[in-house]
This record gives sequence, structure tokens and C-alpha cells, in this order.
Amino acid sequence: MTERLMNTLETPCLIIDAQRMDRNIQVMADMARNHQVNLRPHAKTHKIPAIALQQIEAGAVGITVAKIAEAEVMAAHGIRDIFIAYPLVTASKIERAIRLSQRIELIVGVDSLAGAQLLEQIAGRHGHSLQVRLEIDTGLRRTGVLYDQAAALAAEIAGMPHLRLTGIYTFRGSLLAGKPTLDIAAAGKEEGTLMVQLAERLRAQGIAISDVSVGSTPTAAYAAAVEGVTEVRPGTYVFHDRMQARLGACDLEDCAGSVLVTVVSRPSAELAIVDGGSKTFATDIQPGTEPLQLRGFGHILELEDATLARLTEEHGMIELGPQAQAANLRIGDKLRIIPNHICSTVNLHNHVVMQRDQAYKRLPVLARGMLE
Amino acid sequence: MTERLMNTLETPCLIIDAQRMDRNIQVMADMARNHQVNLRPHAKTHKIPAIALQQIEAGAVGITVAKIAEAEVMAAHGIRDIFIAYPLVTASKIERAIRLSQRIELIVGVDSLAGAQLLEQIAGRHGHSLQVRLEIDTGLRRTGVLYDQAAALAAEIAGMPHLRLTGIYTFRGSLLAGKPTLDIAAAGKEEGTLMVQLAERLRAQGIAISDVSVGSTPTAAYAAAVEGVTEVRPGTYVFHDRMQARLGACDLEDCAGSVLVTVVSRPSAELAIVDGGSKTFATDIQPGTEPLQLRGFGHILELEDATLARLTEEHGMIELGPQAQAANLRIGDKLRIIPNHICSTVNLHNHVVMQRDQAYKRLPVLARGMLE
Repeated sequence: MTERLMNTLETPCLIIDAQRMDRNIQVMADMARNHQVNLRPHAKTHKIPAIALQQIEAGAVGITVAKIAEAEVMAAHGIRDIFIAYPLVTASKIERAIRLSQRIELIVGVDSLAGAQLLEQIAGRHGHSLQVRLEIDTGLRRTGVLYDQAAALAAEIAGMPHLRLTGIYTFRGSLLAGKPTLDIAAAGKEEGTLMVQLAERLRAQGIAISDVSVGSTPTAAYAAAVEGVTEVRPGTYVFHDRMQARLGACDLEDCAGSVLVTVVSRPSAELAIVDGGSKTFATDIQPGTEPLQLRGFGHILELEDATLARLTEEHGMIELGPQAQAANLRIGDKLRIIPNHICSTVNLHNHVVMQRDQAYKRLPVLARGMLE
Repeated sequence: MTERLMNTLETPCLIIDAQRMDRNIQVMADMARNHQVNLRPHAKTHKIPAIALQQIEAGAVGITVAKIAEAEVMAAHGIRDIFIAYPLVTASKIERAIRLSQRIELIVGVDSLAGAQLLEQIAGRHGHSLQVRLEIDTGLRRTGVLYDQAAALAAEIAGMPHLRLTGIYTFRGSLLAGKPTLDIAAAGKEEGTLMVQLAERLRAQGIAISDVSVGSTPTAAYAAAVEGVTEVRPGTYVFHDRMQARLGACDLEDCAGSVLVTVVSRPSAELAIVDGGSKTFATDIQPGTEPLQLRGFGHILELEDATLARLTEEHGMIELGPQAQAANLRIGDKLRIIPNHICSTVNLHNHVVMQRDQAYKRLPVLARGMLE
């Protein structure tokens, strides 16, 4: 990115390097193709329909979202195959899902008998058959039926006339389950193996499970290599981020998203203040926490020993080591910072700046804040 | 809030109790009036022009914002007196500020010679006189000229023909400075005293400082009591939050903002999963950190020993103690949660639900994401 281009942008803004994004999209699509698994990227990372369409063009079978409101936005912009990987448990949302499923291919998550009964009841009222997947808890302890209760619940759901139980899914990742680990190969293999074993048990019960859907960005390739896994749902890979680089899922040079900030104050030799704080950089991945042990709230490009050490809402406090001090940062200088977690950082921005060669355009983050 | 009303709202959503907000606005306005100081609330908390207008109607002289883009939104919706309490250090933003200052009363922050020179240069080019305040660092170590360098810088700025240096300001709070403290009375008194002493020194140098502007929500009343303080700029008080209650700046019953969530999964007796995660609740005030030591990411109403212990992007994991388990939460049940930090939580939402008696309306958070 040239200095001239950087100086035409108001800050703070989130820049996406289109070439890196293109490559990330291609690499994951190739991985899925090589392992003969479907790729259904989670759109939570970008929340931008145009990028979802590009993922599909590269080979994805459709997308994953977390919210019915996100699915509605994506469908309104041309995405025709969506999995809401989240239990819908209120009548109004289920009604919306049924309306949407009359226009596009829609799959809905379910993880409880109560939830399944409500889906069945409302689908039945509409004379509609809803495609569902059962969510399995493989160690993360959030949504998902407990692993050893899955077979019984699957049998109940399979017996419901207006629900078509076609798959099982999980999200386990490597960081969030009981024992956070940097060993993404082992985590992915375990995730895949657990799910394939369960699918086989369900099939032995006579339940026609065709989709075994797993995988986060770090574990996707390892889970996809497990025989019997049919689909992976990575999200972050589209942009990658500092956390993924730390996990070994990418290099820092693969990170397509960076926040451009301006130095607004130099109160002392060891301190530079920039115009991005906790309303610009996500704070869900905190510095110094296990097992990532990231230094600061982002990776500052081209300043070796500088740390984005503290954030208030609109201020970022960068501590400068000896080398960074020698760079003699001045008020008005621009810096680029790769955030710790790109998904929740994109979520703070109304638009991203998509940069391709020396041209850029603003893309609105259309599904941002579509919480309800 | 009745159960019936709660059930008509899609979740997660951020509800504002209008009566509590009205009372918070009035209490702070009365406090300022009693101490004969100006009140210039920071609009960062709500980012909603209609609420800013209500604060002004209750007695505020104008508002404070952090960004030129926020000032533009507020001015477009009728706010006529705005202080951008942030250094503007790039030509394009200064140009925008000059344009805005031709339509409304505008004051701009400055904290460096380089910044002041650029303001002077651009204002001079337009033949315009820009009102500025000098930001002072009273211990927070972010923006602000160091206290003992303030007099020299003020003298330089006072000599610039197109800048009118009318005031000094600081933000210190009680939590963020070198020694975070729960003693908000002492913090407010110290903040006010430091600034009044500096103002007197500047006046002795012949610089006509009329505005001595200080104060956060917890310290406002104590700083306002210091003779010579002329203005306070609290923000959070409009809604209050769990952090302010912990600091003693309000009671939990004063908190006007709560997030309505739905229980989407009950994987075990001790765990309930709700549909609000780190894209719904801010994570900048982490549980268990000094000196607040908050338990979890929010205060769950009507469930004594329940803790919002973990967040992923769209999931909140609530750990249930014995009493909360006895409440027998079911899938589909609604809960209300007061966030740890309301300012950064509002910032995640495209709109708030303003509830007055049994009626409610959606108010867009118009200045949300106005980062540039």
C-alpha cells in the first residue's frame, strides 16, 4: 500500500487487501476440493454478501450464518444456500425461517427436544418440511446436545414429520474447548473423528445422516482429512488474523485485514497515541491470555518492538521499544495494525475499504448488527 | 417490563428504560446547576441525537464527542454546540471542522504544538478563527500534553492568530489513570484541583482561560465541587451501567440499559446458553480485573447466583448456581442483563429499544461506527 493511498483515507478504517483475500478464498476452496468435502464458509467474519458470493464462485456450496437476520440479508443479495448454524427457539424467528426456506435452500440448527418440537409444530402448521441439522457438543460447552445424548435426540427428531434431519454439526475449534490447545492438527482430527463415529452410530439406528459438518479455520484441513467428514465451515480464513497466525493456520503475510490509524499524540518518547481504541479494535481476544499469549491488541506493521498495549474507546496507546522509538513517529503518521481477532473487529465497522492494487472502494458491512 | 412486552421483542436487543434515563439526565443536570458548573455530556454513550437534545433541554450547554464524523451527525440533527474532545491532526478533518464551525458553535481539542500549527495553518488559509481547548494529561497517559509542559504549549497556542484558546480539559476518571481506584471522591477532587491550579497559572501568564473542563461520570460531582472548575463532561450517566454501580456512582436500579436475551439451549443443569455473545455485550471491561472485580460480563436480573461467565461471538454461557438452577430456566425464556460497560455495548447495536411504560420504539444509533 503506497503512502499516497494511505494519505487519501480517513482513519481509523479497516482495509482489506483484495489479493490476499482472493488467495485465502482459493486456498481453502482447493483444500476442500482435494479432500472431497463441501466448503460452507461462515459469513460471520465478513458479513458482506459480495464476499459470500465470491466464496461460492470459488467452490463453496453455500454459506453459514449465526442469525436469521443475517440469512435474510444474505438471501436478499443473492445467496441461495444458507445454513443457520444456531438453534432457532422462538416462534417469530421460526416463522421467518420458514418464509425464507420457501425462497432459498435453508438448513436450520437444532440442539434440543423443546427446540425441535417448536420447529415441528410451526413447520406443520405451514404444511412445510424444514431441513435441520443436529448440533453436537464436542467439548466447547455452549450450544449442542451432549455427545452421549445425541443419539436419543436424533431419533426423536428423525420421527418428526415436518423436519428432515439430514446432518449433524459441531463447532469445536482448538481454543475454546475444555483444554485450549495450539495443536490444531490433533484438535481437527479429534473433532472430525468424534463426529464421524457419531454419524455412523446414527446411521446404524436407521437415521439417514448425509452431512457431517465440522471445522473452524485452524482445524478445517485436519478435520477434512478424516474419512467420513463431508463439510467444513471455516469463517476467519477469508481474511485471517493475528490469532490464526499464532495458531499456525496462516502466516502474518496472509492477513488481509488491517486497521489504518493515525498517530494523534506523542506525549513522550515511549508512547504514541493512535485514533483507534476499543470501538475500532475488538477486545474479545485479550493480550497475554492462554494459550495464545498475544502481545497487545494487534500486530503493528513495520514497527518491530511496538505494542498496542492499552485501549480506551477511541484511543490506542502504543508503547514503543528502542527500535520503534528510532523510527521517530510523528503526529499525523499512519500505521497499519493487524487485529487479534478480525471477526469481531469487522463487526465494529460500518464498512471496509477493499483495496485492489492502488484502487479502493468502500464496501458496507451489510449484515453487521443483524442481531435479531 | 411485562412478560408480554418482552415476548414481542426479537432478541438480543438493547432496551433503554426511558424513565430511568430521564431521571439520570435530570440528576446530573441538577448536580451541575447546584455547583454552578456547565454540563457538556459526552455523547459517546448513546450516539443518538434525540437523547443529546434531551440532555440539552434539561440544562446541558452542548455536547462532547470524540470524532468529527460524530459531530457532523449530531449537527445534522440539530445540536448547535459541540466540543470535539480529541486532537484533530489531519488536514481533511480540520477542513471538515472548519466547515462545521461555520454552522454551529464548535470547539476542538489540541494537545501538541504540531497539531496546533496545522490547525492554525488551515484556519488561517480560510481566514477563520477556530476555538480550541488544550488537553491536559492528569495521569491517564493517553492524549493530553504532560502537566508540567502545559504552560509552555498554552503560551505558543495563545500566540497563534487563528486559534482562540479558551479552555483546558482533561479526562482522568478513577479507573484508568496510573493507580485505578474505587475512591471516586478523591479522584474527582484531585482531577479538579490539578486543573484549577493549572488554569490559574495560565491566567497569571496572561492567557485568558475561561473554561476548566473535567470529569467523568463517577468523578463529575466531586470535580464539580472544586472551586474554579467550570464544566463537567460525564457520558455514561445517561444510562449508567454495572461498572458505575460498582464504583458507587449509581445504584443498579439506576441502570437504564439492559440487554434482552433468549435462552436457546440448556445443555445441563448448571448451564444456560443465551443468544448474546461478544457481538452483543462489550468485552472491554473484563470480569475479574482490578479494581472492579466484576463477576462475569453483565449483571443478570432476577437470577441471584447466575454468572455470564463466557462469551463467544453469538453465544453467552450462563453458569447457574443453586438458586438459579431452582428457577428452572427453559428454552425460550427471556433474561435481562445489565452490561458491564454500556458505552461500548451500545456501540455494538444498530438501534436501541426505547421503552416508556408499556410502549416502545426503535431508535437508530445514528452516530454508531462514525469512526472517520
